[in-house]
Amino acid sequence: MNAPLPSHLVPQIDQRPVPAALIEALKERFGANCSTAMAVREQHGRDESSFESPPPAAVVFAQSTADVADAVKLAARYEVPVIPFGVGSSLEGHLLAVQGGISIDLGRMNKVLNIHAEDLTVTVQAGVTRKQLNEELKSTGLFFPIDPGADATIGGMSATRASGTNAVRYGTMRENVLALEVVTADGQAIRTGTRARKSSAGYDLTRLMVGSEGTLGVITEITLRIYPLPEAISAAICSFPSIEAAVRTTIEVIQLGVPIARVELIDHNSVRMVNAHSKLGLREEPMLLMEFHGSPAGVKEQAETVQDIASQYGGKAFEWAVTPEERTRLWTARHNAYFAAIQSRPGCRAISTDTCVPISRLADCLLDSVKEADESGIPYFLVGHVGDGNFHFGYLLDPKVPREREIAEALNHKLVTRALALEGTCTGEHGVGLHKIDFLVSEAGNAAVEMMRTIKRALDPKNIMNPGKIFTL
Amino acid sequence: MNAPLPSHLVPQIDQRPVPAALIEALKERFGANCSTAMAVREQHGRDESSFESPPPAAVVFAQSTADVADAVKLAARYEVPVIPFGVGSSLEGHLLAVQGGISIDLGRMNKVLNIHAEDLTVTVQAGVTRKQLNEELKSTGLFFPIDPGADATIGGMSATRASGTNAVRYGTMRENVLALEVVTADGQAIRTGTRARKSSAGYDLTRLMVGSEGTLGVITEITLRIYPLPEAISAAICSFPSIEAAVRTTIEVIQLGVPIARVELIDHNSVRMVNAHSKLGLREEPMLLMEFHGSPAGVKEQAETVQDIASQYGGKAFEWAVTPEERTRLWTARHNAYFAAIQSRPGCRAISTDTCVPISRLADCLLDSVKEADESGIPYFLVGHVGDGNFHFGYLLDPKVPREREIAEALNHKLVTRALALEGTCTGEHGVGLHKIDFLVSEAGNAAVEMMRTIKRALDPKNIMNPGKIFTL
Repeated sequence: MNAPLPSHLVPQIDQRPVPAALIEALKERFGANCSTAMAVREQHGRDESSFESPPPAAVVFAQSTADVADAVKLAARYEVPVIPFGVGSSLEGHLLAVQGGISIDLGRMNKVLNIHAEDLTVTVQAGVTRKQLNEELKSTGLFFPIDPGADATIGGMSATRASGTNAVRYGTMRENVLALEVVTADGQAIRTGTRARKSSAGYDLTRLMVGSEGTLGVITEITLRIYPLPEAISAAICSFPSIEAAVRTTIEVIQLGVPIARVELIDHNSVRMVNAHSKLGLREEPMLLMEFHGSPAGVKEQAETVQDIASQYGGKAFEWAVTPEERTRLWTARHNAYFAAIQSRPGCRAISTDTCVPISRLADCLLDSVKEADESGIPYFLVGHVGDGNFHFGYLLDPKVPREREIAEALNHKLVTRALALEGTCTGEHGVGLHKIDFLVSEAGNAAVEMMRTIKRALDPKNIMNPGKIFTL
Repeated sequence: MNAPLPSHLVPQIDQRPVPAALIEALKERFGANCSTAMAVREQHGRDESSFESPPPAAVVFAQSTADVADAVKLAARYEVPVIPFGVGSSLEGHLLAVQGGISIDLGRMNKVLNIHAEDLTVTVQAGVTRKQLNEELKSTGLFFPIDPGADATIGGMSATRASGTNAVRYGTMRENVLALEVVTADGQAIRTGTRARKSSAGYDLTRLMVGSEGTLGVITEITLRIYPLPEAISAAICSFPSIEAAVRTTIEVIQLGVPIARVELIDHNSVRMVNAHSKLGLREEPMLLMEFHGSPAGVKEQAETVQDIASQYGGKAFEWAVTPEERTRLWTARHNAYFAAIQSRPGCRAISTDTCVPISRLADCLLDSVKEADESGIPYFLVGHVGDGNFHFGYLLDPKVPREREIAEALNHKLVTRALALEGTCTGEHGVGLHKIDFLVSEAGNAAVEMMRTIKRALDPKNIMNPGKIFTL
């Protein structure tokens, strides 16, 4: 059991009663696909955040959109919350049953429904994970680029407007979801778009649902844009004498319009942790991991431009990887950073920040925050999708020492305040969840958040769709 | 005076009374910037559509967001509609005062507020036109790519989710608006986003407003993505033995992932009309106009790939243009197509279709519709942003012959039905306005349109924001 936290760092728990009649009705409708076993409930009542809450009262394993619709209809009848669940990789408490209710697990809705290679679109059920999707796309020569790190479901990635390492070139879920099927608060399934690449047909319900964190409906199917695998891919790492040098290189690359596919910052802490974890023997200096996609000539051209810029900022030890195996080795450093960091301090929990600022403000936002983190004494690592101006500090806390959590939250608060002053956002890709409810008000203003609440009240008058997330009502 | 049209082709006019007290209050607040002169009202009560309606009761020329907010507050007090007006280039009746009310002209809010060249963003007032913006960007080496043809305002382009010739590479207003300032139905100004490239901070109010056609608020400021002018640009025209050959070439180019910047179809009718209008001496055959952006090597590579594909489909007479002057000459054919067509039949009006389908369905959708148009006997021209699967028939009607309008509407109806069956949309870029209210229901379904109505009712309870557009309430 962790030591108690100061009350302002604990999510507000106010679980509504779940009538026995609802559980009975769910068991009748779903049989073995409705579970009230404590282990199952607990597994569905937490995520990768550091929040805690009593679990949902039951878990429904949906196999179809009709299952989701029926579960929502039953929940609506008893005015009980529903919380969609993918793989549980949220970092922001999206999955916690802070107002009670039932969890709808979409993991068994894991079919790729159709691949339209000739249109560069694919339609999947919400429980398909991004790795599974790319596996199933392999034979077509196409791929889905968005990579948030975790092997999240496409439904969860849509609900949080996720992005990740490839977003600098390919965009985020905002740009890559063409259409959705969504079960609304009254248990109806609607479609929010077509397979056309563009449309001016009425309100953009697709983009309204993308990033709505389950508060407006349960996403059941997603039509995505996919891309031809580039003719040539080449990856490189480059070490820098300072974080600033790495960041300034990135800024110049982006401002020049180089269509770089990935440009990730890994600070010296992360490199040290990854070296310890994976024996990679990398120079323990800040580094950029980069990837270039295009024709062989185009990739060569991009790489030369970037190498020129990097060398002006003292970048050295450019190491290239052209074969898939070599690329995988380089990317291991990035992909393992989170777990390597967790293991660097046994028993710790990580709190992840997620600010994103205009690229010209990146150095200002990042360097001052590094200084503050260094001074705090809290162990941390820093990684970033710096081409987008988005980066994550991971503060590594001893959960038995509430003071550490307070220090980390104070660091994050300063960072967010700085990012907002620099015309940025408190969350580039993780979502608001429980953690950033106050930050959202600071960022968007009361009137804009009130508009969100108005939409929420109109579309979910009983407030049953993942209540308590994004804003308080 | 035109002959009367069959009733189902006439927009429903039901103008609410505008109390004299409101007009007085507007005159007091806005002085000479509020006009009730009939010529001014009539100019603001029509657009490029073929619809007619009595004009708004007054026109307010806003100079600031505060002006817009005050005009909306006064209108709200008397429950009178407000209709935002840019340059009047809507093709779908967006500007018609079918429920009466006042027009808010944003044309004098025409300042480029700040250019953040280092972040590739710009913030403009809603009345800035796209040509003005590119003029003001010239010295920075950056440009705003979206080009719907008309020199529309950025506010109007946002409100209709416009796109045009460059969308195949750079996306539409959906992808390129980062944030908005919007005056809501209660006269408050809200901001919908930051200058960060990506964000997961709550509902995507930006995308909800983009394409809402003035029905949820008046857009007053827009923050846009801008792009470095490509190092190299090269344009080409290529004639084809048939529309099918041109379309199949396009499909293959897109499916291969060639990052072509523009690929426009111009049918032989359009070429004939443009030749007559501008004495261009082009081969009177279907043609593709293409543009390639990138590094010199990249552009050469793209162009070679496309030339190879085109020649497989019988494409001939590739004509290249590398200097700006030569490019302008080639693009004249495209840019003058609409006016050349109108002049080809003195006194005619054009009805423009706007379907957009997945690229693999383009030939199916287009070729059958060409056949029907040919058989109808109605003069027409056909142009298309075919790289996006979007194309426009322009049926050229004698407004004195209602039967022609009926035939054209029947052709459009067949075309939309076909596009929807092929998983496309009734409107790729013009919006719904008055013309496609029924089509939207066919496309999105009752439940999705009802969701739009629910949002509308919640955000505009008095139904004063451009009422009667997109859907009936």
